[in-house]
Order: sequence, then C-alpha cells, then structure tokens
Amino acid sequence: MTPASHSKERPVADLLVPDILALLEEAPGDLAAETEEMHAADLADVVEALPPGRVGEFLRALPPNRAAQVIEYLDEEVRAEFLEHVTSQQAAEIISEMTPDDRADLLEELEEETADEILSDLPEAQRQETERLLQYEADTAGGLMTTQFVAVPRAASIDDALSLVRAAARSARRESMHAIYVVDEDGRLAGVMSLRELVAAPEGTRVADHMVTEPVSVPVSADRAEVARATSEYDLVAIPVVDGFGRLVGVITVDDVIDAIQEEQTEDVQRLGAVQPLDDPYFLSGFWDLVRRRVVWLVLLFVGGMFTSAAMQSYLATIGQALVLTAFVPLIISSGGNSGSQSATLIIRALAVGDVEIGDALRVLLRELGQGLALGSCLGVIGFGLVAFGTEQGLRFATVVAVSLVLVVLVGTVVGSMLPLLLRRLGFDPAVASSPFVASVVDVTGIIVYFTVARQLLQLA
Amino acid sequence: MTPASHSKERPVADLLVPDILALLEEAPGDLAAETEEMHAADLADVVEALPPGRVGEFLRALPPNRAAQVIEYLDEEVRAEFLEHVTSQQAAEIISEMTPDDRADLLEELEEETADEILSDLPEAQRQETERLLQYEADTAGGLMTTQFVAVPRAASIDDALSLVRAAARSARRESMHAIYVVDEDGRLAGVMSLRELVAAPEGTRVADHMVTEPVSVPVSADRAEVARATSEYDLVAIPVVDGFGRLVGVITVDDVIDAIQEEQTEDVQRLGAVQPLDDPYFLSGFWDLVRRRVVWLVLLFVGGMFTSAAMQSYLATIGQALVLTAFVPLIISSGGNSGSQSATLIIRALAVGDVEIGDALRVLLRELGQGLALGSCLGVIGFGLVAFGTEQGLRFATVVAVSLVLVVLVGTVVGSMLPLLLRRLGFDPAVASSPFVASVVDVTGIIVYFTVARQLLQLA
Repeated sequence: MTPASHSKERPVADLLVPDILALLEEAPGDLAAETEEMHAADLADVVEALPPGRVGEFLRALPPNRAAQVIEYLDEEVRAEFLEHVTSQQAAEIISEMTPDDRADLLEELEEETADEILSDLPEAQRQETERLLQYEADTAGGLMTTQFVAVPRAASIDDALSLVRAAARSARRESMHAIYVVDEDGRLAGVMSLRELVAAPEGTRVADHMVTEPVSVPVSADRAEVARATSEYDLVAIPVVDGFGRLVGVITVDDVIDAIQEEQTEDVQRLGAVQPLDDPYFLSGFWDLVRRRVVWLVLLFVGGMFTSAAMQSYLATIGQALVLTAFVPLIISSGGNSGSQSATLIIRALAVGDVEIGDALRVLLRELGQGLALGSCLGVIGFGLVAFGTEQGLRFATVVAVSLVLVVLVGTVVGSMLPLLLRRLGFDPAVASSPFVASVVDVTGIIVYFTVARQLLQLA
Repeated sequence: MTPASHSKERPVADLLVPDILALLEEAPGDLAAETEEMHAADLADVVEALPPGRVGEFLRALPPNRAAQVIEYLDEEVRAEFLEHVTSQQAAEIISEMTPDDRADLLEELEEETADEILSDLPEAQRQETERLLQYEADTAGGLMTTQFVAVPRAASIDDALSLVRAAARSARRESMHAIYVVDEDGRLAGVMSLRELVAAPEGTRVADHMVTEPVSVPVSADRAEVARATSEYDLVAIPVVDGFGRLVGVITVDDVIDAIQEEQTEDVQRLGAVQPLDDPYFLSGFWDLVRRRVVWLVLLFVGGMFTSAAMQSYLATIGQALVLTAFVPLIISSGGNSGSQSATLIIRALAVGDVEIGDALRVLLRELGQGLALGSCLGVIGFGLVAFGTEQGLRFATVVAVSLVLVVLVGTVVGSMLPLLLRRLGFDPAVASSPFVASVVDVTGIIVYFTVARQLLQLA
C-alpha cells in the first residue's frame, strides 16, 4: 500500500479507510496479504481511523502475530476497548505473540479483572514470566526490561556463539539483538559485544577475547531517569539489567528508553506548570482526575496567596495616603515572579541534564545575584522612564518604582535559583519549583519591598 | 580499572585522578594499556577531573583513535580548550579518527579560524565529506546524520551481502550497523533489513526477498523534532536520510536522536520559563549572553504589565471608597495566572507529543471551560470561607471575592489553553505561551473582572 506518513494528522490513514472497509465486506481473507507491506505503526494509524465498531473485526482478520504488532502501536484507549470486547482466549492468543515487556505493559493498562482473565488463558511459561514482570514498578528498570535476550557463555567459541545467535534470531519473536551479552557460569553479566563485533570476529577465536568486560548495566530497581541517563551517556542501543547478585535478568531496548525519556519529560513539564503529573494523555485523563491533579496546587497556591493579602492589608494606611501606589503593585510583583520563573526553569533543567549539581549552589547563587542586578537594573531604568515621562507621578515616585524593581528582580532570581536546589537537597523533585510556586513566594516579598521603599522615599506612614 | 559510574557526581573519576597523574609522571607509555578496559565515557569523566593543565598531556599519551573516542564524550568547554591548544596537525590526526557526523559537530563548536586550520589538515576525502556535512543546519536531519553506513545493492545475494557487511564491520571505524540499507541502481533507498535478519536469512536467497520495502526515512532538510518523532513512532535504532531524489545520503543513529530529543526538550522547558533557549549549558553560557536571552521576555512582560497599572489606575475612585479591595488583588489575579499556567502547560506538552492537534481546539475549549468552572468553584468556596470567617469584611465582600475567583480562573483556563493553539496556528512555537506570558495576559482581565464585580455587588462608583 502506501509509504509511511510521519505526521500524527494521518491523512494517509484516512484515505485508506474506505479500501479497508470494502475489503472487510467483500474479502476479509485478503486483508492480511493486502496490508502485509505496511509498517505496523502505519497500520495502527489506519485502525484508529476506522469506525470504532469495525476495529475488532479488522484485527481478528489479521494473523495473531501481525495483530499483536499492530496492537502495540495503538492508542491506549482503542487498545483497551478492543481487548475488553473480545473473549479472553482471543485476547490471550494475540497477546502471547508480544514480547514479554510489552505484554506486561499492556496488561497493566487493562481493568484488573480483564487482565487476570487474559493472564490465566496464557500458556503456563508465559503466564509466569508475565506475572514476574508485573511485580516491578512500571517506571523502574524491572518494569521497562524484556526477558527475551541473547546471552552466550563466556567460555563459548565465536563459532558456537554465532550459531547460537543465528538460531535465536530465527526463532525469537521480534526482540532486538543489537547487543550480545556474555555471562559466567553463575549467570552473572561478564561482558558484552555487539552483533557486528560477533560477525566481524575471526573464526576460531573465543567470545572472551572479543567481549568488552565490565559492561554498563543498571540494577533492576533503578528508576527510569537513571536508565535514561546511563543509556544516553554511553550511547547504548540496549542496556542490561542485573539483580542484586549481578545476574543478568533482562534487557531494556532503546525504543523503550526513548519512551521513558519522553514520559519523564512530560512529568517534569507538568510539574513546572503546577500540575500533578497525569497518568494518561490529556484527552484520555478523566475530567475529575484532571481536576484533582490541578486543584491541589491551585488551593495550596491560593492559601499561600493569603499572605499577599495580609501583607497588603498591613499597608492600608500607607495606601490611603497615596492611592496611586496600588496601581504598580501587580507590575512590580509580577516582574519578580517572572525573573524567578526564569531562574527556576534554568536551574531545574540544568539539574535534570546534569549540568548543575547541588554542590554548585554557591556558584549558582553568585551568578544569579549578578543576573538579578543586571536584569533588575534594566527593568529599573525602563520603569523609571515610563513612570517619569508617561505618568503624572513625578521623579520621586519613578524612583520608588525603579528601586523596587531592582530589589524585587534580585529577590526573584535568588529565590528562583535556590528553591530547586533546596528541594533537591531535601529529596524532592526540583521541578516542584514551578513558575506559579516561585511567583507566589516572590509576591509577598515584592509587596513588602515595594511599600518599604515607598514609605522611605515618599515619607509616608 | 574500575567499572562504570552512572552518576554525574563522578566519585570514581575523582579517585582515579592521583593514579593517572602518577602514571603521567612516571610511565606515560603505560597509560593507554592501563586505561584500555574503561569505557570512553568514563575516561572522559577522568579527563574532566584532571587539573586543566594536564588534559593535553594525557590525551596525547593515548593512541589517536582512543583519544578521538574520549574527546567525543568530553564537555564542550574542556574539548574546545584542548583542541585550541594543540597544533592543527595534532588536532587533525585525532579528529580524522571520528565518525563524520561527530567530526562536523565538533568543528562547529570551535572558533572559525581554528576549525578552518584543522579542516585543511584533514585528508582530502575527509575534508570534502566534513565540509559537505557542515553545510547542513545543526538541527536538521542533514546536521545529525553520518555518511558512514552500509548499503547493499538490491540485486545482491544474501551471501554477498553478508560478506560485504562483514568486510565493512572489520574496516569501518565505529559506526553502528544495526540496519542494513538496500539501494537500487540509482542509489535510491529501496529497502531495509536488520543485521539480525541478514544473519538469519537462509543462504542462497536474495536480499530483495528479505528486505522490508518502503522503509521509513526522513528528508535531509527534516527538522530535529520530525526526526525524533519518526524514530520514536517506528521504534527505530537508526533512520535513513534521503535527498530530493530519494537517494540515500546518510543515516542518523539513535544515540544522536536521543541527544536531539533532549536538546529539543531543554529548549521547550526554557521557553516555558520565558527564557530564549540557550545554545550552551548553564555554566558555559556567557553572563551577558544569559542576560540577553532573559531580558527580552522580562522587558516585553514588563511593558505588557503597564496595562495592569493602567487598569488599576482607572479604578482608583473605587479603591478610594473601599481600600481593602486592593488587599485581594494579588491573590485573585495570581489564581487566574496559576490556572492559566496549568492549562497552557498541559496543552503545550500534549501538542509536543501529538496527543492534541489544532483541529481539537473546540474539544479543548469545552473541556477547559468545564475545568475552569470546577476549579474556580472550588477556589471560590474556599475564598468565600476564608474571607467571611477569617476577616472582618462580611458576607457581601466574601461574595465579591468568590464570584471574581470563579470568573478569573475560568478566564485563566480558556486563555491558557487557547493561546498555545493560536500560536501553533500562526506558525509559532506553542511553548512561547510560558507561564509568565499567560499570567500577564490574565492579570489585566483579572483586575477588570474583580473591580467590575466589586462595583456591582458593593454598589461602588
């Protein structure tokens, strides 16, 4: 059929729908052959474009191993819908064609009852393997790894290893085989070589002569971010997972690492926007689930905001003497919040990618003090100009605005840069220092700074 | 020596420094052998922990191909420092051991003069290849790809292809070989097979019988985000790059895709914090460069903030009648900004990962209206309670706060969710709708809403 479309808009998929529906009516037996050349990801796009009532019919017209591939690429919603509407035997037949890690991931998405039924219909060995994988937290190395990998004994000859790998390549389902792991007699990870190195190794030599010893690995309990960091730092296409005894128990392939990096990033961005990370994509998250994940921070920030209200009330006498003071409150406190958001974002990202560490706190502080002075002075000059020449308030008032801006921006950069480091130090995720959070901390200080400066320079009570 | 440490804290690297320095003094000839077993990434950590004056000495003690590997993993700063202080011949000798894409990336980081000198000292073929790669923008497929890849003719037999690949595997420097690309007689990309499929294919058959036709590819001009999307969507470990005639011109390996994903994410996060994306890591960015990338947004937001000041001034008469009104201004407008930041962040991320598209605007609007009502009502009830029972302002005033909160939060969710979609529609990056930007748009509306409600309910002028 037609070549890959990379866009999520899926014009190609939409174009194919009438053909597919016609085939389903007239010659469902030909569907598998007609769609054989398509990438499973593209075929999944077509399935998503079908009328929901026809999805099951279409997937059942494919051979189970092809259906399994397509299902892996489906949106969670469509996939769950399909699996909960076929018999558990039919579901088990398809799911048994998947790699162990994808199978476990998929069962985790389903209603517990449906998942248990399907699980009990899987062949015994697969059921046990899947149940073992289901025990690991989804966002740890154990939850990401597959148990289908090729390991060769350290003592093997290159020829034996190559036959072993060729046999595995012919039989294994669709697991990647970019790295060949070498284990000692106790199953402990002893080395690694790439398939390319194995192919290139002269016949008659031994695996131990060519393998890289002390390969990079992660413990089964390592969290997602650690897996991503190690894979990215060492430019790996697969990373081995070891248990507490150093035994090789699984392998995480780079496609799952990329997914993990993107999920981690989604969580970070949501935290930065003061939302508790969602479990599901935006439209798949339930309405009230979304409310719940937003309302916590909104209420916390609102209650924290009562301090701004208290601060303002303590200056009501001052305000009464010069009402116009109030006109600049939002402008001044938001400037502090903005410079604070900038610092917080820069430091949070630098912490996430390892450019800044807790030990750099003093260096960061000095740098942000400098940034705050430079940025604050810049806003101060502009603010002075706008108030002095754009309003009727005169030079003295313009000076109040300018001096407050310098100080408030300085407070913003210091609070914004130190808060993520403090959170990390206390064991929290630095991304909790969201722009709204930083802004609300800086707001109170901003009000106090502004009215203090105003009282001094305008000689108010 | 010692196994891989994944942490960027590098305790292992620090421990090795004294040994390395001792070796450098006493037996520099043994350095290469002593560090042979270490992963180049770990050795790079050691180099970064050395006193800066000894880095050159250490790297020159390694064989050029090993030095090239280590240099690829070094921090930009340390790398540039080294390359600008050796002769261009020495630099060229090391750099010529790198893969073409890494070589081009590295030259791009250096001062133009230094880069030109090194370039002219490279062997002719390498120089031409590197110059060709340097013509592509760094954040496009052309800038990410390597030109070292294995392509076999469509007409080849499996045996011929395997010999070709084995020969390439023995000779090629260190390029990955996870996918074997198949080209027709004009060099156009005709198919792909994995090394594993090649190894598993029965002897005597032909490449054309086993390859996948219509492989996923990206054009040489595709931007970084598109490369990442295609690689991630199709779970690839390498993606071929084609020119306007469909000819295979390069391959992007997944490690470079991961780097691209992370750089893209860093830029998005920085935009979300109202910072123009930095070119370099936090500490490597120049002080004034950093100021420049922050001051643009700070000044824009400040000038925009003058509208809040104008809005407040237009209500001075109202404020004069009830000073206490001012005490709740920061609280109310920041609640709108916070709910707006939440919506903007959710939509920006959903757009980035493809969960939401421009066509979903109406669906998003309806959902966010609902969210705004639910969240606003929640804050409204809490606000009513806090003002009615926690202050001396009475029920009527509490009602003003409550009604304003509902409306302001509603405005926040609508503005926050629609702004990223509007920006995308106009061809801008949706991440420009940073929390500070959304907050500043919502602030003015918040002031108007609050004072309008207050005038009505409190019967003020």
